[in-house]
Amino acid sequence: MAVNLYIPPESQIFPVAGVEIGIAEAGIRKANRRDLTVFRLAAGSSVAGVFTRNRFRAAPVQVCEAHLAADRGIRALVINTGNANAGTGQSGLEIARQTCTALASLLDIEAEQVLPFSTGVILEPLPLDRLVAALPTAIRGTAADNWFAAAHSIMTTDTQPKIVSQRVAIGNQTITITGISKGAGMIRPNMATMLGFLATDAGIAPDLLKRMAGSIADRSFNRITVDGDTSTNDSFIMAATGASPLRIESESDPQYEPLYRALTDAAAELAQKIVRDAEGATKFITVRVEQALNTEEALKVAYAVAQSPLVKTAFFASDPNLGRILCAVGYAGIDDLDVSRTKLWLGDVLVASRGERHPDYQEADGQRVMKEPEITVRIALGRGDVTETVYTCDFSHEYVSINADYRS
Amino acid sequence: MAVNLYIPPESQIFPVAGVEIGIAEAGIRKANRRDLTVFRLAAGSSVAGVFTRNRFRAAPVQVCEAHLAADRGIRALVINTGNANAGTGQSGLEIARQTCTALASLLDIEAEQVLPFSTGVILEPLPLDRLVAALPTAIRGTAADNWFAAAHSIMTTDTQPKIVSQRVAIGNQTITITGISKGAGMIRPNMATMLGFLATDAGIAPDLLKRMAGSIADRSFNRITVDGDTSTNDSFIMAATGASPLRIESESDPQYEPLYRALTDAAAELAQKIVRDAEGATKFITVRVEQALNTEEALKVAYAVAQSPLVKTAFFASDPNLGRILCAVGYAGIDDLDVSRTKLWLGDVLVASRGERHPDYQEADGQRVMKEPEITVRIALGRGDVTETVYTCDFSHEYVSINADYRS
Repeated sequence: MAVNLYIPPESQIFPVAGVEIGIAEAGIRKANRRDLTVFRLAAGSSVAGVFTRNRFRAAPVQVCEAHLAADRGIRALVINTGNANAGTGQSGLEIARQTCTALASLLDIEAEQVLPFSTGVILEPLPLDRLVAALPTAIRGTAADNWFAAAHSIMTTDTQPKIVSQRVAIGNQTITITGISKGAGMIRPNMATMLGFLATDAGIAPDLLKRMAGSIADRSFNRITVDGDTSTNDSFIMAATGASPLRIESESDPQYEPLYRALTDAAAELAQKIVRDAEGATKFITVRVEQALNTEEALKVAYAVAQSPLVKTAFFASDPNLGRILCAVGYAGIDDLDVSRTKLWLGDVLVASRGERHPDYQEADGQRVMKEPEITVRIALGRGDVTETVYTCDFSHEYVSINADYRS
Repeated sequence: MAVNLYIPPESQIFPVAGVEIGIAEAGIRKANRRDLTVFRLAAGSSVAGVFTRNRFRAAPVQVCEAHLAADRGIRALVINTGNANAGTGQSGLEIARQTCTALASLLDIEAEQVLPFSTGVILEPLPLDRLVAALPTAIRGTAADNWFAAAHSIMTTDTQPKIVSQRVAIGNQTITITGISKGAGMIRPNMATMLGFLATDAGIAPDLLKRMAGSIADRSFNRITVDGDTSTNDSFIMAATGASPLRIESESDPQYEPLYRALTDAAAELAQKIVRDAEGATKFITVRVEQALNTEEALKVAYAVAQSPLVKTAFFASDPNLGRILCAVGYAGIDDLDVSRTKLWLGDVLVASRGERHPDYQEADGQRVMKEPEITVRIALGRGDVTETVYTCDFSHEYVSINADYRS
């Protein structure tokens, strides 16, 4: 029941030179489903990652951070679904490390050149033997055009695969950007049970890619919320293989800006697809806060609105219950907010100004907007000139059903 | 479908000397329901209030604050349900003031001696004429034994009236404490669409009562959460009529401590009844955080757990999905939390220690606890000796239904 989630036809999914993908059925949690994905990256690829800030960081996240810090050149990613290997302590760490060792030995690289990712239930041991047993099958099947299959195989409660792919002219080069993501619940910035992988054949210096990954995550995966829960496993990985002639060393390169924009757009689309497919979502909501003094307060207000169960159930009901939005603005934590300077729009309809219903507002106009599957809520604070946008969805019966039944 | 919400029999609801209550049908939002309540307080009563910190403070809240500050001696409260008079700007303020003026004129007191309260839908004008027209009926019917009827008449989406009443021996005096509350959604500390009125016939000096009200609110109404939304109208009012011989001037009075404890217990019970009757609640959850460095971090963790939709849907499903609780602990915002020192109990079952599932934990034990209608989650942080407790409920299909249909 995803909301306007665009799935490109296979002909529009462009392989990224230097990336090959293999998939297998490991039977991690369920039989007869492809739950294991291996990415192989060409030698010399730059790889950077941004990970959850949850203090219960899952074992694979800890291993990813260590392996990136070791700086041996990342050559492979291994992703399982069905089990998050989180809350599994020392033995979980050992299993994540052994996964890397097993894959490295099959690929004749070092364990520190492998990044592991896991998603699924937490607090249960990841069945290492089954995972390792399926690695050879995954490796045998690696191919450049497996992106769509990979988008499928990393899904958990996702109803749709999430994939973006584009060819972009940068200067006189055409580069490719292709990525996949997964996640449907436990989504919140910093980050979510969310995995995102974005690859390009552009060459990007490792340090530059690292800075870009942080900044791009802040403009994409850190701007979405489904239920306010930041998971133990969230990971966003960017890889630049350098197979195309374009090579960028620093922000001062004239090609940097268009490349940064193209990668940010792709990451934002991947992130928004997660919201579009959020558990039980029937509507895609953009919350845009304008005229804030700074980013922090703009985001406080945007998240207060985007995470309010009362606001989200009103969207589900297509009920222009605008008081709930104003209420959330009011408790967002701006102590000196002057409500008489605030304005609220629902789509293009000016709903409230000066802290009360706008005299021209007609409920029928609000109702019309609320019935749309894509709704923009715009809030002007009258305090400054900073704008920030957050994406969320409505809150439905289906959300409760999915989350009450997830483990059964 | 309230969870173990105790409604005392009428014989156990004790009038408070100095308090009389009248009720009427004003037709604020619906016909044929008692939606208007008037409290009359004896001359010389001390009255103190604690109000929402939402920046969109409703008109009646603003008028309450002004009238308390005017310090003329509060003699009456007027409470309507069906319309919150919030987000109504200058005209809403005028309506709240005129409500006070109308009641004051009928009671031959000053407008500043009246406190107004409203609860219900927001952003819609409160029909002043209908409210004022019903005041004489309410006044004619005032009686000391109308507490139970008042508990009914202030309800909105509440399914049950909320009332506490007790006689308490303090020194060689017996005093009476009786109170009512309402609220079922938009409940979160600081405060909620929640009204609480607590009266005693003890005499308490006005300044002392003011300090007590703040402290008691922090230990009762500010320790509950249903959906994380802090409303525009929350008000907690304490009145001490002084009709009993007991009179307390300061915290150093030896009778202060037992009186404070008795009033706090009554307020906590009124607050917890709101959670027990929360929209769609099927379980009453106590979240107790121990071994915190300070109150702030204890509450951060307690609220992260108590407000996580994933945790709350797991409770609804009686699913011991403990990973979701650990996950919420991890994102609560304690940056230097050492997860290897944390412990988690579900009821009396030690579920996790050192950041992972406890080796002796059996799912059947967790399952047994999760099926109970009252569940205590205990989290030890291993950092200090501060303990804080927050009360919440599970998150059910019914919650979504109620909030999606509220205005229809």
